[in-house]
Amino acid sequence: MKVLVIGSAGMVGRKLTAALLKNGRIGDRAIAQIILADIVAAEAPATSIPIASHAVDLSAPEAATKLLAERPDLIFQLAAIVSGEAEADFEKGYRINLDGTRHLLEAIRQQPDYCPRLVFTSSIAVFGEPLPPEIPDEFPLTPLTSYGTQKAICELLLADYSRRGFVDGIGIRLPTITVRPGKPNKAASGFFSGIIREPLAGLEAVLPVDEGVRHWFASPRAAVNFLLHAAQLDTSGLGQRRSLTMPGLAATVGEEIEALRRVAGDKAVSLIRHVPDETIALIVAGWPQAFSAKRAESLGFVAEKNFDDIIRAHIEDELGGRIG
Amino acid sequence: MKVLVIGSAGMVGRKLTAALLKNGRIGDRAIAQIILADIVAAEAPATSIPIASHAVDLSAPEAATKLLAERPDLIFQLAAIVSGEAEADFEKGYRINLDGTRHLLEAIRQQPDYCPRLVFTSSIAVFGEPLPPEIPDEFPLTPLTSYGTQKAICELLLADYSRRGFVDGIGIRLPTITVRPGKPNKAASGFFSGIIREPLAGLEAVLPVDEGVRHWFASPRAAVNFLLHAAQLDTSGLGQRRSLTMPGLAATVGEEIEALRRVAGDKAVSLIRHVPDETIALIVAGWPQAFSAKRAESLGFVAEKNFDDIIRAHIEDELGGRIG
Repeated sequence: MKVLVIGSAGMVGRKLTAALLKNGRIGDRAIAQIILADIVAAEAPATSIPIASHAVDLSAPEAATKLLAERPDLIFQLAAIVSGEAEADFEKGYRINLDGTRHLLEAIRQQPDYCPRLVFTSSIAVFGEPLPPEIPDEFPLTPLTSYGTQKAICELLLADYSRRGFVDGIGIRLPTITVRPGKPNKAASGFFSGIIREPLAGLEAVLPVDEGVRHWFASPRAAVNFLLHAAQLDTSGLGQRRSLTMPGLAATVGEEIEALRRVAGDKAVSLIRHVPDETIALIVAGWPQAFSAKRAESLGFVAEKNFDDIIRAHIEDELGGRIG
Repeated sequence: MKVLVIGSAGMVGRKLTAALLKNGRIGDRAIAQIILADIVAAEAPATSIPIASHAVDLSAPEAATKLLAERPDLIFQLAAIVSGEAEADFEKGYRINLDGTRHLLEAIRQQPDYCPRLVFTSSIAVFGEPLPPEIPDEFPLTPLTSYGTQKAICELLLADYSRRGFVDGIGIRLPTITVRPGKPNKAASGFFSGIIREPLAGLEAVLPVDEGVRHWFASPRAAVNFLLHAAQLDTSGLGQRRSLTMPGLAATVGEEIEALRRVAGDKAVSLIRHVPDETIALIVAGWPQAFSAKRAESLGFVAEKNFDDIIRAHIEDELGGRIG
């Protein structure tokens, strides 16, 4: 089978590509070709599977049609600009996060005799306050950001294009991915990763909120497993509701810190410095705290059950199994 | 104030225009100008209020900008192609029902120092099976038609554009409007009106479903009152959730018929002929049966409380108070 990864240069895209190359198959079907696409060409690793890498702007209507030239059987649509940028640049957010996915769906629809599996990454940002402490599968889409609105609209399009038989779509709402590798960034959610990643590397980390703050997490490894599972799932089990909240782990910042202590000791924890930031605290206060992801769990999606495992996944996948 | 009615040539649009002209004001503000727009120019009635009528295709991006030339303070967006047509012509449905409203929102956003009230007519078609017997205000948008998908997407856009301060939007989800005046049409829902309207005119009507079928109704008069109330509502009471299920009346076909008997006698009822139609029965079986519209009720929206009043509204508004 042929696999197209759109948004292949991002953190999840790179890890997904590595997993596709390592496995060499999706379920019992061997991967014959991988097509990578992003706004910048992704690094195409040396591999026995033929791999093509394209730099495209999906917000140009003809871009998607080009990517479908090889008629991929499986498409991962991961490309998006992040929440902060979509809020700061209204037009760019709609152009990339809404029109980009809509152009892809249209390009698929216009191919004759073609109905690929499309795995779309949505987000828990489709939900906004007021929220119950544990958000059920049947909760309304109530985004409070332009990013969340764009993701919610794409979920609706994905469902309608699937219902009409143009595509075999599945949308997966990712938890906050933690521990993100790389350097600290300015995202309001950055500290959730930072207070683990930096101390594990022997560096100081700033915690801007109280330890009582509770949020919903899964590791990058779990995110890749969600994508691979969605790629081979029997979608008849989805019915008409094509988007699913992924399982995750509800944990407080305090629980994060205690997990770090168990895995890496007091010395690591001592590198976390509490510097309260009212702005970040206010943003985070409106975020979901926990979900009941029964639908996804019943369909076989699996996430970490405790924060220790999230930290261990980071040490194994990013630090070669050793704490710095 | 200046008022723009988009979709002014339709049944609700014409009744709304008549009400605007009759009242001459919205709340305590006199109407200085009315601008009518539809795909065909609406009949502009003789009136003391200056009135302009435009034939425009809202799916052309520049059309909306032209309609905003007079900077209307209040805009009613009623224009849409109906459910059956949106299902039969996929591209046309998205072009008119999604892009049309999106172009309007964009044209509003691009005007400097401008934030008009926008009343958008949505539909209970944003909800689809599986549904509870009574659908609460906090039920997810789960459309099972392209029409319902397009309405749900517009609700999300309306909320985001309002949150960003580009427009002061309110979406109202109309019940099935009954009794529709005019000739029988081929809509699957047509019989709900037909079994009242035709007998009242001394004509035979066909009932294609069982008397136990239950559905959600309001009169054309109630629909116009919803629009006028939405036009002057204090939208701060909506919070971020800008679309509301309108109140209505849950009634079975049998209850409709008994109301007809009370208002117009056995002779009228005897004109209803039961000719079962499996196709229509199956379509209707997937429709909502009843809603709890507590949010809208608490904001002052009012519908009929019994089907007798729906029939009497038709007799007063369409038949000059007399049964033919």
